[in-house]
Amino acid sequence: MMKLIDGGICAAKGYKAAGVHCGIRKNHSKKDLSLILSEVPASAAAVYTTNLVKGAPLTVTKAHLENGIARAVICNSGNANTCNANGLEIAEQMCALAGQALSIAPEDVVVASTGVIGQPLDIAPIAAGIPELAEHLSTEGSAEAAEGIMTTDTVLKEVAVEFELGGRTCRLGGIAKGSGMIHPNMATMLVFLTTDAAIAPAMLKKALSTDIQATFNMLSIDGDTSTNDMVTVLANGLAGNPEITAEGDDFNAFMAALNTVTVHLCRMIAGDGEGATKLLECVVTGAADIQTARTVAKSVVCSSLLKAAMFGADANWGRVLCAIGYSGADVDVNRVDVAFKSPKGVIPVCKNGAGIPFSEEKAKEILLEKEIEILVNLNSGETSSTAWGCDLTYDYVKINGDYRT
Amino acid sequence: MMKLIDGGICAAKGYKAAGVHCGIRKNHSKKDLSLILSEVPASAAAVYTTNLVKGAPLTVTKAHLENGIARAVICNSGNANTCNANGLEIAEQMCALAGQALSIAPEDVVVASTGVIGQPLDIAPIAAGIPELAEHLSTEGSAEAAEGIMTTDTVLKEVAVEFELGGRTCRLGGIAKGSGMIHPNMATMLVFLTTDAAIAPAMLKKALSTDIQATFNMLSIDGDTSTNDMVTVLANGLAGNPEITAEGDDFNAFMAALNTVTVHLCRMIAGDGEGATKLLECVVTGAADIQTARTVAKSVVCSSLLKAAMFGADANWGRVLCAIGYSGADVDVNRVDVAFKSPKGVIPVCKNGAGIPFSEEKAKEILLEKEIEILVNLNSGETSSTAWGCDLTYDYVKINGDYRT
Repeated sequence: MMKLIDGGICAAKGYKAAGVHCGIRKNHSKKDLSLILSEVPASAAAVYTTNLVKGAPLTVTKAHLENGIARAVICNSGNANTCNANGLEIAEQMCALAGQALSIAPEDVVVASTGVIGQPLDIAPIAAGIPELAEHLSTEGSAEAAEGIMTTDTVLKEVAVEFELGGRTCRLGGIAKGSGMIHPNMATMLVFLTTDAAIAPAMLKKALSTDIQATFNMLSIDGDTSTNDMVTVLANGLAGNPEITAEGDDFNAFMAALNTVTVHLCRMIAGDGEGATKLLECVVTGAADIQTARTVAKSVVCSSLLKAAMFGADANWGRVLCAIGYSGADVDVNRVDVAFKSPKGVIPVCKNGAGIPFSEEKAKEILLEKEIEILVNLNSGETSSTAWGCDLTYDYVKINGDYRT
Repeated sequence: MMKLIDGGICAAKGYKAAGVHCGIRKNHSKKDLSLILSEVPASAAAVYTTNLVKGAPLTVTKAHLENGIARAVICNSGNANTCNANGLEIAEQMCALAGQALSIAPEDVVVASTGVIGQPLDIAPIAAGIPELAEHLSTEGSAEAAEGIMTTDTVLKEVAVEFELGGRTCRLGGIAKGSGMIHPNMATMLVFLTTDAAIAPAMLKKALSTDIQATFNMLSIDGDTSTNDMVTVLANGLAGNPEITAEGDDFNAFMAALNTVTVHLCRMIAGDGEGATKLLECVVTGAADIQTARTVAKSVVCSSLLKAAMFGADANWGRVLCAIGYSGADVDVNRVDVAFKSPKGVIPVCKNGAGIPFSEEKAKEILLEKEIEILVNLNSGETSSTAWGCDLTYDYVKINGDYRT
């Protein structure tokens, strides 16, 4: 009983959002500051990058979310506010300014920044932009806010679902920014989720921490773990369902809705990876345990050689085997089967760790599609896992060869 | 008292080598089969890839080197003989054919293959080529042999040094093939080393295993660990020095010669990485321990984002900090200093984990050079380490987007 709906982060009751160009970026046509507001205090949880070099906004957000409650999110693009001597001060100021404009406590504001590392962030354009941003807040503002957090993204990323909890219609939506510096085992990129479901802060945290292990932590664009990534969820309870305070059917239904939204965003982020022309999805089956399945799936989508081969629509399955072999997982490589799949069909290319004859022509036809599944069967158990990535292209090099200047 | 000399793997007494085109590759102008012969039985040692998917030649070589003695090396390019049902049989046949042509036991032959994974390797062209190869063996054959093992390499890689042991002049030389699928913590690529020094097999093994930790295991082209990589050394004792049978001055002198050759080859391999326009050398100083120094240095040269920035001569030092932060090493990021260095000068860009003002113009001038040092001072101890890599370029994508077909 779940369906995709429009509205992104404003699909759920009681949320408004906006995005403006305040002047952090020189390009006037690109929004660079976004705001999300919940009418009422919301349960809030977040997960953060595991990089030891952490953006100042993460430190501030972490402190603000200690009580599990928030009402607003302020986020700029164009500058990561990381490795700056006055970074904490600037991040605190962003919360103070947003709090002032919204008449809420600065401690109820989540702050995030994305962009170049190590360049001073001037508070002036942000201070000038926040009042305008607060004025623009609207229940139609999800796309604007999604635009304001984009960096090298080429596609705006938002999604929402409708589902039921305790007889009440609930909604959960999200926006994301992705593109580069994205790698598994961290809280990966900027994702803001909102829901009107009623759920206690501790259960919200549990839901998010569990979900990201199978979603954002299984996503790699380039093997680089950003300093600023975080995934935040607000749950304001306005749907009126009985508050979720423990595991059970309602918690599972919430998890299912959350997972639908996060998988959707993962696929959007991977497919719009820097320079990407293809979404790669590695589906590992037959693993002895979940750790093995995840390690193998991630290793395959992270292989530069395989990523380049996929760009060239080259069925070079030896690179899949190679990536499985160096993944660190305890795998019997002589049992591994590999196939490539796309809307054009499926073609087995390796059986029991060795090549099998296949039509190069058919393989090419399959691999020329925009979404490619790499199917790996380890034939050693019952566990599965999926990882997402993208191909490695000329444009990745172009984008990153001269991003800063 | 060590000096670089010509002659590569034939610089030391008692070695001959050759390379021919036997027909594994379609391109007739590219040699694809190489042979090295020691006049007399030599102490022999090797280190192998840690990839679970291992080329069949590695299994055969490992068995042949169990007694620590070898006389010849046969190596083809154009096909890795990996993930083939009859791979072991083919690798054994290569040794048998070489042994026959050289009138030595097949068990005294080291075998290696490099090229595409998972395509059947036809023994016919090899069988036809080996007699010609044996006839061509010459003390001038190092460059020919180096050419025969090249894959996407653009530069032939050989080097040799002369040094003294126990009053006798010794020589040690090597050839290597590199380019793609090269990543630290494995025995990385194909390297064949020869020396006329007298050293017991156990000490030779110890010397090699120790050396590679600071050399070939600190080298990354693309983060992919090949299935076929190995480093082999033969020591035939013809220099007449008292055999090295324990640690001490002679062992240290041998280690120094070995290290000179292996560092030289590392730099050649990194500088000629697939598509590379620049050699990157990350020098980490001030580390609390060697593991930290190595982990940080490797993480920096492995960062796709930094590699792309270096291609664009962009002093994006935030990506250096980012790579240090996610390396997994226990580092106080607030003490880290970063500078870029090349023949054009040195420019500090980060002090105590935060940006410092610098001339973009001067930075550009420095980074436009072909050899770039990334200097990282952790300011937390006395230990140093160096890692080698290359920039990420359009040509890497081009080479790997359509390598197989």
